[in-house]
Amino acid sequence: MKILFLNGPNLNLLGTREPDKYGTENLNDIEIYVKSIAKDMNVEVQFYQSNIEGELVDKIQDAKNKFDAIVMNPAAYTHTSVAIRDAILAVEVPTVEIHLSNIHKREEFRKISLTAPACIGQITGFGKESYKLGLIAVVDYLNKK
Amino acid sequence: MKILFLNGPNLNLLGTREPDKYGTENLNDIEIYVKSIAKDMNVEVQFYQSNIEGELVDKIQDAKNKFDAIVMNPAAYTHTSVAIRDAILAVEVPTVEIHLSNIHKREEFRKISLTAPACIGQITGFGKESYKLGLIAVVDYLNKK
Amino acid sequence: MKILFLNGPNLNLLGTREPDKYGTENLNDIEIYVKSIAKDMNVEVQFYQSNIEGELVDKIQDAKNKFDAIVMNPAAYTHTSVAIRDAILAVEVPTVEIHLSNIHKREEFRKISLTAPACIGQITGFGKESYKLGLIAVVDYLNKK
Amino acid sequence: MKILFLNGPNLNLLGTREPDKYGTENLNDIEIYVKSIAKDMNVEVQFYQSNIEGELVDKIQDAKNKFDAIVMNPAAYTHTSVAIRDAILAVEVPTVEIHLSNIHKREEFRKISLTAPACIGQITGFGKESYKLGLIAVVDYLNKK
Amino acid sequence: MKILFLNGPNLNLLGTREPDKYGTENLNDIEIYVKSIAKDMNVEVQFYQSNIEGELVDKIQDAKNKFDAIVMNPAAYTHTSVAIRDAILAVEVPTVEIHLSNIHKREEFRKISLTAPACIGQITGFGKESYKLGLIAVVDYLNKK
Amino acid sequence: MKILFLNGPNLNLLGTREPDKYGTENLNDIEIYVKSIAKDMNVEVQFYQSNIEGELVDKIQDAKNKFDAIVMNPAAYTHTSVAIRDAILAVEVPTVEIHLSNIHKREEFRKISLTAPACIGQITGFGKESYKLGLIAVVDYLNKK
Amino acid sequence: MKILFLNGPNLNLLGTREPDKYGTENLNDIEIYVKSIAKDMNVEVQFYQSNIEGELVDKIQDAKNKFDAIVMNPAAYTHTSVAIRDAILAVEVPTVEIHLSNIHKREEFRKISLTAPACIGQITGFGKESYKLGLIAVVDYLNKK
Amino acid sequence: MKILFLNGPNLNLLGTREPDKYGTENLNDIEIYVKSIAKDMNVEVQFYQSNIEGELVDKIQDAKNKFDAIVMNPAAYTHTSVAIRDAILAVEVPTVEIHLSNIHKREEFRKISLTAPACIGQITGFGKESYKLGLIAVVDYLNKK
Amino acid sequence: MKILFLNGPNLNLLGTREPDKYGTENLNDIEIYVKSIAKDMNVEVQFYQSNIEGELVDKIQDAKNKFDAIVMNPAAYTHTSVAIRDAILAVEVPTVEIHLSNIHKREEFRKISLTAPACIGQITGFGKESYKLGLIAVVDYLNKK
Amino acid sequence: MKILFLNGPNLNLLGTREPDKYGTENLNDIEIYVKSIAKDMNVEVQFYQSNIEGELVDKIQDAKNKFDAIVMNPAAYTHTSVAIRDAILAVEVPTVEIHLSNIHKREEFRKISLTAPACIGQITGFGKESYKLGLIAVVDYLNKK
Amino acid sequence: MKILFLNGPNLNLLGTREPDKYGTENLNDIEIYVKSIAKDMNVEVQFYQSNIEGELVDKIQDAKNKFDAIVMNPAAYTHTSVAIRDAILAVEVPTVEIHLSNIHKREEFRKISLTAPACIGQITGFGKESYKLGLIAVVDYLNKK
Amino acid sequence: MKILFLNGPNLNLLGTREPDKYGTENLNDIEIYVKSIAKDMNVEVQFYQSNIEGELVDKIQDAKNKFDAIVMNPAAYTHTSVAIRDAILAVEVPTVEIHLSNIHKREEFRKISLTAPACIGQITGFGKESYKLGLIAVVDYLNKK
Repeated sequence: MKILFLNGPNLNLLGTREPDKYGTENLNDIEIYVKSIAKDMNVEVQFYQSNIEGELVDKIQDAKNKFDAIVMNPAAYTHTSVAIRDAILAVEVPTVEIHLSNIHKREEFRKISLTAPACIGQITGFGKESYKLGLIAVVDYLNKK
Repeated sequence: MKILFLNGPNLNLLGTREPDKYGTENLNDIEIYVKSIAKDMNVEVQFYQSNIEGELVDKIQDAKNKFDAIVMNPAAYTHTSVAIRDAILAVEVPTVEIHLSNIHKREEFRKISLTAPACIGQITGFGKESYKLGLIAVVDYLNKK
Repeated sequence: MKILFLNGPNLNLLGTREPDKYGTENLNDIEIYVKSIAKDMNVEVQFYQSNIEGELVDKIQDAKNKFDAIVMNPAAYTHTSVAIRDAILAVEVPTVEIHLSNIHKREEFRKISLTAPACIGQITGFGKESYKLGLIAVVDYLNKK
Repeated sequence: MKILFLNGPNLNLLGTREPDKYGTENLNDIEIYVKSIAKDMNVEVQFYQSNIEGELVDKIQDAKNKFDAIVMNPAAYTHTSVAIRDAILAVEVPTVEIHLSNIHKREEFRKISLTAPACIGQITGFGKESYKLGLIAVVDYLNKK
Repeated sequence: MKILFLNGPNLNLLGTREPDKYGTENLNDIEIYVKSIAKDMNVEVQFYQSNIEGELVDKIQDAKNKFDAIVMNPAAYTHTSVAIRDAILAVEVPTVEIHLSNIHKREEFRKISLTAPACIGQITGFGKESYKLGLIAVVDYLNKK
Repeated sequence: MKILFLNGPNLNLLGTREPDKYGTENLNDIEIYVKSIAKDMNVEVQFYQSNIEGELVDKIQDAKNKFDAIVMNPAAYTHTSVAIRDAILAVEVPTVEIHLSNIHKREEFRKISLTAPACIGQITGFGKESYKLGLIAVVDYLNKK
Repeated sequence: MKILFLNGPNLNLLGTREPDKYGTENLNDIEIYVKSIAKDMNVEVQFYQSNIEGELVDKIQDAKNKFDAIVMNPAAYTHTSVAIRDAILAVEVPTVEIHLSNIHKREEFRKISLTAPACIGQITGFGKESYKLGLIAVVDYLNKK
Repeated sequence: MKILFLNGPNLNLLGTREPDKYGTENLNDIEIYVKSIAKDMNVEVQFYQSNIEGELVDKIQDAKNKFDAIVMNPAAYTHTSVAIRDAILAVEVPTVEIHLSNIHKREEFRKISLTAPACIGQITGFGKESYKLGLIAVVDYLNKK
Repeated sequence: MKILFLNGPNLNLLGTREPDKYGTENLNDIEIYVKSIAKDMNVEVQFYQSNIEGELVDKIQDAKNKFDAIVMNPAAYTHTSVAIRDAILAVEVPTVEIHLSNIHKREEFRKISLTAPACIGQITGFGKESYKLGLIAVVDYLNKK
Repeated sequence: MKILFLNGPNLNLLGTREPDKYGTENLNDIEIYVKSIAKDMNVEVQFYQSNIEGELVDKIQDAKNKFDAIVMNPAAYTHTSVAIRDAILAVEVPTVEIHLSNIHKREEFRKISLTAPACIGQITGFGKESYKLGLIAVVDYLNKK
Repeated sequence: MKILFLNGPNLNLLGTREPDKYGTENLNDIEIYVKSIAKDMNVEVQFYQSNIEGELVDKIQDAKNKFDAIVMNPAAYTHTSVAIRDAILAVEVPTVEIHLSNIHKREEFRKISLTAPACIGQITGFGKESYKLGLIAVVDYLNKK
Repeated sequence: MKILFLNGPNLNLLGTREPDKYGTENLNDIEIYVKSIAKDMNVEVQFYQSNIEGELVDKIQDAKNKFDAIVMNPAAYTHTSVAIRDAILAVEVPTVEIHLSNIHKREEFRKISLTAPACIGQITGFGKESYKLGLIAVVDYLNKK
């Protein structure tokens, strides 16, 4: 079982960016954390990050024959990208949307997700544990299919 | 560690209600499933369901000294209850909001949650696994505090 | 054939409440009127009234195995209750929505019904005759099925 | 007692138009059905259909001294015609609005009726029985006056 | 002269709930305070609190023959309850709406009151003094009638 | 100088229609009144009324070579007709829009005129004098050109 | 018969301000023009202009016992002044609203008039003739009373 | 293969109407142009124009057994006619919507088409070539079926 | 203790203005009434009224070192004045907003107050008693500080 | 004559993506199809596809001196890209917008095109024929210039 | 070269008003600062402040023949004054709009400026440096003309 | 002191793009102009332009340790990019937003900036001088810190 963890714009700054909102661990720490959990579940995990909307679309398309599922934190593109939404619908790779912070506690425009209707579900607000929960959710989903 | 699982209106019909949307397991099945997981985690779990908004408010208030956290599926009241939102803010018991179906795939009015801004986070769309994920999320949260 | 007549908040005040808008007959008078018509149609009728949203949800759920259909005047909850809408969708008991006054002649917020999309149809504006028309409509519907 | 049944655009296609939504009976079948019921009630009924908004306005004006009441299915003009609304207000002939399908289950723009605030009430969603219910409603209304 | 003080959801938590926003006195302290003032004014006062919308409706209906007026803090139901609005209009007992905090300083959805149009007036923002001001206002009103 | 007075739906009912809002004089009375004034101004006037939107469009088109200007009371079509707006823009016959009642004092949807932006100006609220004022305005306009 | 012509902000610049939109005549020219017409009608006319909203309110209040009617061009305050609206309602001096340019042809925010619902009617789009038409309209109105 | 070209209000004025926006050719010129192309494609073409919404509905209904497809320029009714939308849905004759000018470059209200969702597709902005493109599009469509 | 009572536009007309809505007492009567109460409370009171928004701003600024608090009825400026809101925030003199009529029972645009978020609280709907209640509220507030 | 066919995000998935909505032919098939038609018209055609908004902008800029016109299917960026709109306006290369599916039949947010106002016109809903129609439209346009 | 610096309501309180938001320097300090810079640029500067909207309009009108340009901080009137917008358009004196704080970081209603569309440009968020930047900008502008 | 000048999509076309709106100087001319000013101020300046949203994000992130501040013209991304907003918030490099044209004079959607709330301030409408003003503003800001 192979899972792609897709990370949107500015997530490469984790740890240095507003640490009281996003925590002090960086994306690499999270990757190590997720991979140790994945190993116990016998799941292979790959991390990818880009600030470019179209590269995220490329990667989703590329995932079609290489991964069983995607766990995706689209960050800022959650609220503006029809292209990512269409990519998920087009490749039909099961996808779980995750967010570090609780998007319902922030600015009005962050409450609506353009990408979530294309996903199995959404997990928002649990810091790095959102990544772990996303992993568990998507593995459960694949096991049931 | 004691966790209250609070279930809103019509969740007592699970299993009989639109099974293609909500699955064939009823709330009791989910309770048994969650309790078996909780036991492994050494956590005590109690399930409660009511169709009455005010009784859910009562139960949240009552949770203050009896439970360490709440996992709540407010169902229809997610979108109409300021009273439940205020109750969570008032008691300050850590709360995770969960939904069986993905609220972002349904009617427009179901996309906005009045209660989620009062919670740690929200998990939506994973069927009964939303309950399991809610349990893990809230236990992680309590362990970190 | 058994029909439940479900009455929402403040309908127990009928006859005393703004009589120029709602008439001088009380809910008991309407019940007697409907029952005499139902008797001629060989239909059994039960009336129920509650001011509590959740009790109306309870009653709808309870109707599943006891009644063939519901005629429902949700009154104020017409415009605010997702829970009643979900209850009707969940139990799949055929339901007709009725209103004493014409909701299209009143405040803007009364024009939209959250519950009507879950019903066969809606009858609004004919005073106590809305109850009679609701009875005829639902019996016609059952006879055709 | 004389009642005009006024039918708006495309109702002349009934029976051929989307039969799963509107049934297989055509407007003539409905006319025969309504007239047989009306005969038993000792009421004279006339059917009129036009696709032209202004002709419907003409007919409403013309009804003033010829009919005791109108049962009207304005179809598409329900949502766009201020002229029909004004005509009913101007002639002061009691009018009941009816619809074959439940307008609350369809596109958002069909939920609001421009004409209903000028009518006694509205009956929506009961197929050809909406015509029968409209007849009963308007006769009840005339008998009470 | 008998006045009912009606208190909506979560007001039973006063004193423990966000004390910097709502003060450290609980509802009982306020009751004692109001009663001491009422005594000087030769007015009898009764306090009632419920978290259940329908029970508040019940109590308003019940007030018809037992109280001369109501001072009501509908709390969260201020913004969501058509049923309470209709109850006040139905019983025609003079009612004053009060709020502890200034609703115009909080979230957008708290600025609009569904219940205030059914009341004599509204007092908002003076902490427990809102209760005293409500008492004075309603007694003035009754004295003038 | 020849002026067409174009009258929209239901204006043929003037005098009988809600006389407290529109006065007791009928459209013929107004025509006589306007013609007597026009005669003094040495202007030829023709009145036309139709309930059919498209016939009003026809008449506007037809006016191109027969009339120097139009005074138009589009009545209900003021708020719904893009076709009349386009007709005026297409024929480029100077047009003044008039209304008997003050459209700014009525329902919200009557405040916006789809047709007025295609006209020289608008006169609203002066009963039959709106017709006289419209005549004076359009003659002034023609004299200046 | 005495009529006050009230002129709002920037009308003192007429003639110099965007002459292709407002013409080359200044407010004094218009005053002379209106007075010559008024003289023929045996009506006394006074002109007043201010850029200050509150001074216009003062003048409206002052008109109560000094003038039979007001012809008012509120200019920019048309769209922002509740105070002028309230002043007209308070003094109950018959008022006609006029505009030089056609407000329906300009920015969206100029289409809605806050002051017009307090007036007899509105005349918009006829340049300086709007003043003449306003005079005729208000004299007609006074003659009929 | 027979195709009906349906033309809405004011299209009979083509050539004389705002020639810089719509070109100098009239509807007859376009008809000749389209017919010469159709002849080469071995397709029979009929042109129809009306200013009356209901007559366009009549013609669409009439097309059911007489034409294989419709190319329709609903002009002003594009944005206001639910009746034309319903007619196309009812007759199920394949329909292509065309516009001379680019509706996305004009007033806001012209961007939304009420009729396009009932059509195969829409072509907008190519002057008389929109008619040619509509013909090619609909013939392609019929050939594939 | 010195309190400024600030009165907005048209309040100088009280007693003569729509007496069924605002009562027959004029602003002077209210001043006498308030001063007699204030005297008993050992509080000095000054009344000020202006129709000019900027003069009200001037007076608020001027209050900074001369008054302990302000009771303000901004009347029409309640709904349009950011300047008054900013003035209160700038001077930081405790302010209570009052209204004679219940703003929640009137036009939609009167429900939102631009000035109330800058005040301690708001009292609306009690006629001249709103002034008395405002006085009590502000004195309570000052005593607690 | 040289035409650039610009294809937005996810169009490289054509043929595999939701084939019932977009057909089974891939973008290469369409390219071959368009080129064979172009050859007959003596027009040179180049296809370009990118998932990256900015690369599409680059390509539009680059087209300035290399192509006579652009046929563009911006796909998801139709509804979110001001940058593409600005690029077309900046280079002033004639552009036709095309879509495979009928955007008026899909989600609400797909009805509005940010890019179409910068184009000659738009063709939507004809599957791969939209490409052919776009080619014909743009060649007609160039021939006329 | 003579420049008028126009200051709107409450700016006379600068230095005392919320110093953490607006700084501790008062308007006089800013005037001295700006004048010293202006002197170096050989520009004459005059400062004017008023809390009255109409006086600001007066001053703008008065600037026509006395000043080469205006630098304006309309403060609260930025968001409510059509009169100031119209005044700038009428006098055609080049105007630059400035703000001390960044209006895009504050309440929603402060993001839209009614006056900015009448100006050359807008500078917002740089404290007293906004005045310096406004001076430089307007001098650059005049030098280029 | 090192300042990064970041330029968004289509700014590389400056000088050729709509010269009457944006001037005839290209981005290189502006760079030379800014650098000559910067040199006098003893500030080092670097220019960067990209049409790709994500590359602008990359560059902002990269600026963290290399530049003291950013002057940014996000062009089209001003109105659509949450990613750029988040990047500025994440790196906490002081940023000034600039625009060549006055965004308040253009389409409605250009009035709201998603990026400005993350910046110190915004300067809009002064052509290439906006770059100079941005430089001065940001140097002032750095000097004060």
